[in-house]
Amino acid sequence: MPALHLDPRDFSDLRLLAWGAYEPLSGFVRADDHAGIVAEMRLASGALFPFAVAPALSDSQRDELRGAAEIELIAPGGEAVGTLAEPEIYTVDVDAEIRATFGTDDPAHPGVAVTLQGGPHRLGGKVVVDAAHPALLLAPPFDRHPGSPAAVRSAIEARGWRTVVAFQTRNPIHRAHEYLTKVALEPVDGLLVHPLVGETKGDDIPADVRLRCYEALLEGYYPDDRALLAMFPAPMRYAGPREAVFHCINRRNYGATHFIVGRDHAGVGDYYGTYAAQDLLREVGADELGITPVFFEHSFFCKACGSMASAKTCPHDTGEHVHLSGTKVRELLAAGEMPPVEFTRPEIAQLLIDATRDANQSGGAS
Amino acid sequence: MPALHLDPRDFSDLRLLAWGAYEPLSGFVRADDHAGIVAEMRLASGALFPFAVAPALSDSQRDELRGAAEIELIAPGGEAVGTLAEPEIYTVDVDAEIRATFGTDDPAHPGVAVTLQGGPHRLGGKVVVDAAHPALLLAPPFDRHPGSPAAVRSAIEARGWRTVVAFQTRNPIHRAHEYLTKVALEPVDGLLVHPLVGETKGDDIPADVRLRCYEALLEGYYPDDRALLAMFPAPMRYAGPREAVFHCINRRNYGATHFIVGRDHAGVGDYYGTYAAQDLLREVGADELGITPVFFEHSFFCKACGSMASAKTCPHDTGEHVHLSGTKVRELLAAGEMPPVEFTRPEIAQLLIDATRDANQSGGAS
Repeated sequence: MPALHLDPRDFSDLRLLAWGAYEPLSGFVRADDHAGIVAEMRLASGALFPFAVAPALSDSQRDELRGAAEIELIAPGGEAVGTLAEPEIYTVDVDAEIRATFGTDDPAHPGVAVTLQGGPHRLGGKVVVDAAHPALLLAPPFDRHPGSPAAVRSAIEARGWRTVVAFQTRNPIHRAHEYLTKVALEPVDGLLVHPLVGETKGDDIPADVRLRCYEALLEGYYPDDRALLAMFPAPMRYAGPREAVFHCINRRNYGATHFIVGRDHAGVGDYYGTYAAQDLLREVGADELGITPVFFEHSFFCKACGSMASAKTCPHDTGEHVHLSGTKVRELLAAGEMPPVEFTRPEIAQLLIDATRDANQSGGAS
Repeated sequence: MPALHLDPRDFSDLRLLAWGAYEPLSGFVRADDHAGIVAEMRLASGALFPFAVAPALSDSQRDELRGAAEIELIAPGGEAVGTLAEPEIYTVDVDAEIRATFGTDDPAHPGVAVTLQGGPHRLGGKVVVDAAHPALLLAPPFDRHPGSPAAVRSAIEARGWRTVVAFQTRNPIHRAHEYLTKVALEPVDGLLVHPLVGETKGDDIPADVRLRCYEALLEGYYPDDRALLAMFPAPMRYAGPREAVFHCINRRNYGATHFIVGRDHAGVGDYYGTYAAQDLLREVGADELGITPVFFEHSFFCKACGSMASAKTCPHDTGEHVHLSGTKVRELLAAGEMPPVEFTRPEIAQLLIDATRDANQSGGAS
């Protein structure tokens, strides 16, 4: 049987497919599904799905796999994890896929860059992988927390939560996002803090550093029985509105009933309108998403309110608001200085200061 | 044509009926609707409705109105405001109504007391009253704000809000309830602050004092374009779970899409379980209510969180929480002392101190 060695991104997708996190997908998409996803964000069956999840093949891989009745799937670590049944190799219009998925064809966009690099040959087929295969387990330190939909659903059930709001993030959680999670938690039973720990772009903060921040924040500032930290090991595509749809579908599969969507969800640079993701989710609607999106504005600490707030809930002048740019925060952390407690919890700031110092030292030593 | 002089409570109901606030009711309920409401909280048509809204008649009123083809309706101020068509006089099982409505037959319960005082004779019929009749207008100072469903819906439309969360209250809004309103506002377009300004029990704070508090709070702490103050001139029945259903139906008719339900909603004393109202609304469901209830826990300022929170969002010891009993607050206000800013906004505290002083002075002079 010929074999395909998956790169880390494709392997992340494979793992989530095997776990059922990408349902209704049960494999890498075929040509007819690919066309429907590009044209109207739907599989050939009509089901909503925003991304054409299918490994790109090089010319030589295509030649090697052509005509195979079955393909062995090999993890980046070298383990055989299962097979791809009824494989279908096809060629796509990369430019059409990129424009539909990312709304831009700028090669500087990190998602566009990955897709361009992959080229036009794709591999579809049914994923035959045991969800419990040990090669799918998360590596330390991420294995301290539930990773699969089954594990998360079971943790939710054990807590007796009927309604659960999920929070996707690829950043440390500062006060502004802590506020969103708590506002969203108040009227439901539980909060699923669900950071994306798959592949991100190089200047995002590494997942292991973020993990320590999430653990410290939950330990210090959330009730044990109301907040659950779990891992979402998907790669980041930075596709804005379509990725918001993707995140809704995933979190529905993980057992959440509500999903937090802030400004510029899953965006990067200036490619998407601030509310483009919220608008698309409104258009699709909670019924078809299978989960209720909960929309938020930009939030901040307001000295006149004496609390966190947003433009919706605070009438005061922006001079009353504690605002720090990303650049300013990075400068403070690099200098070993604490941002104000209204911006970030001291425990989180200290972890980020330590990580910045360690990264600079190892950078200097290399 | 014989006439019925309505007392203030029945007149409040008449006004809201004429305004369409009690839809699907279009008049005072008849015997068949009364039976359905008592037995299963439903009109004879099957539509959900929790209160048997129908004036009680004394023996002499019953004798006087018996056999009338039409009855003139007279406001407490003496104005004729319209007629009751196809009147039906009937006799009810007061004890059954009281138990179904209030879950208790304790005559110390303020809603039970009013119903017992009314006695068993009731008047049903179609209310033929022009919604724009000047006698229905709210009296100063309440006429500074929209009162009717039509006026509130028009104000909502003018602001372009698609989703609106309504907040019912019969108390001044301290920080804890400000928090609930802002948490509920964050994910929707607008907030309808909708105090009940009809008849309440004697020890509730008078509606005109509360009005000044609401105005000051919205002026100082809510954005103009996100919060709307409107009047809900219904009498208070203190019926807990059934009144929560009633409040949901009313606010749906006022154009709200969401409705805040805290602990012991519309309760009094210890007659209802803390979450009995929330449980009943969950059982009925948002689809039949026509509005989505948003449930909350007890909230407080937590010094360790540095913010308002609830048991759901704060893990810290209660020693970190700012808690004041109702008795303690009344003592502070009576002594002219400010409660902590974490408990109430200084502007609101000052208004309540002034009102307490004025009430004591006029009490002393009488």
